[in-house]
Amino acid sequence: MADYTFYTNPMSRGQIARWALHEAGARYEQALVDWTNKSAALLAANPMGKVPTLVHHADGGDRVVTEAAAICLYLAEMHPEAELLPCDAEMADYYRWTFFAAGPVEQAITSRNLKFEPSPEQEGMAGWGSFDRTMATLDSHLAGNDWVCGSRFTMADVYVGSAVDWGLNFGVMPPLPSFVGYAERCQARAAYKSAKAVDNALIAEMRK
Amino acid sequence: MADYTFYTNPMSRGQIARWALHEAGARYEQALVDWTNKSAALLAANPMGKVPTLVHHADGGDRVVTEAAAICLYLAEMHPEAELLPCDAEMADYYRWTFFAAGPVEQAITSRNLKFEPSPEQEGMAGWGSFDRTMATLDSHLAGNDWVCGSRFTMADVYVGSAVDWGLNFGVMPPLPSFVGYAERCQARAAYKSAKAVDNALIAEMRK
Repeated sequence: MADYTFYTNPMSRGQIARWALHEAGARYEQALVDWTNKSAALLAANPMGKVPTLVHHADGGDRVVTEAAAICLYLAEMHPEAELLPCDAEMADYYRWTFFAAGPVEQAITSRNLKFEPSPEQEGMAGWGSFDRTMATLDSHLAGNDWVCGSRFTMADVYVGSAVDWGLNFGVMPPLPSFVGYAERCQARAAYKSAKAVDNALIAEMRK
Repeated sequence: MADYTFYTNPMSRGQIARWALHEAGARYEQALVDWTNKSAALLAANPMGKVPTLVHHADGGDRVVTEAAAICLYLAEMHPEAELLPCDAEMADYYRWTFFAAGPVEQAITSRNLKFEPSPEQEGMAGWGSFDRTMATLDSHLAGNDWVCGSRFTMADVYVGSAVDWGLNFGVMPPLPSFVGYAERCQARAAYKSAKAVDNALIAEMRK
C-alpha cells in the first residue's frame, strides 16, 4: 500500500505537491478530483474541498496535510534521506522565502489576476504592499543566489520555484533575468521533469 | 549583546513576533520603526520595509527572517529547549494550520478589510475560496482541539492564535465559541501576557 493518498487535479496547485512528492521519493497513490463532483473522502479530509490535499497513512493513524507549501515542508521532514531539509545556517532563508511566496507573492498575483489591487492608501493594510515591491524583493534575493538557501537546493525551492515558474508561464510575473534563470534551474531537476510528465499526460488525456 | 535585533512597531504584526520571542525565551533588542522614516538598516535587511523583521546574530553571521509566521517557526527551531516544536505525529497539523492562517485566513481577512471579495465566478481562482468557507474550516479544527496540534501548545499556536485573537478583537472574525475559547487559552499564556504588556505600554506612550 502506498504511504500517501494524494488528492489532486493536474490543472491546479497539485502540480506543486506532485513535484514535492517526487523530490522526496514518496510512494503515493493519486486520487483525481473532479471539480464538479468532489468525493466525500476529500471533503472529510479537507472541508475547503481544495487540492492538493495529502493524507499520510502513518503508523498511529492517518494525518491530513493541506496547503501546497505545508505539504512541501511536511514531506521534507518525513523524508530526511532526500536531504531537502535546511541545515541550521539555511533555516532563516528556508522559512522566510517559503512564507514570502505563500503570503506576499501569492496575494500580489491573486489580486492582480482578480483585477483588484490596493490603492496607495490601502498599501499599508495589504501584507504584500504592492505588486512591484513584492517582485523587487524576490528579485533582490534570487539575483544573488542560485537557490532559496544559497547554493543548495532544498524543499523551499519546490514551493518558491513553482510560484516563479507558474508566474512566468502565465505572464503574471515579469521575466526578470533572476526569475528566468531560477525557473530554468528548477526545470532541470529530475523530479520536476518526472512530476510534470505525469500532470501533462493527464491534461492531454482530459483534452481528448 | 542580544542574540536578536527585532525591528517592530507596537501597532503591527510585530506583536505576533514579540509573543514568539517571549515564548522562545530569546534575548532580543528591539528597534522601533517609524513608518514615515524607515532606517537604512531595516531596508537593507528587508527591502519590503516591513515589520516584523528579525535579525539573528548567529555564529557565522547575521541571518534575516521576515514574515511573521516564518519568524515564529524559525524561533521554535532555534530554541528547542522551549519545547515549541512539533513531534513527528504533530507535524502535519503544525504546518497545515500555520500555512492555512498565513494563506487563506490572511487573504480572507485582508480582502474583506479592503472591501474586495471574489465573485462566485472568481472563487475558484482565490486560494481562500470564500470568507465563510475559510472560517468554517478553521472552526471545524478548533471546535475539537484545544490547540493546533491537539492537546499541546506549540509555536503554531502563536501564529494561528494571533490571527484568531486579532480577528475577534477587530470584529473581523465571527465570535464562534471555538474561536473565543481558543483566544482565551492563548491569552492565558504567560508569554502572551508579558509580550502584550510591552506593546501596550509602547502604544500608550505613543498616544501621550
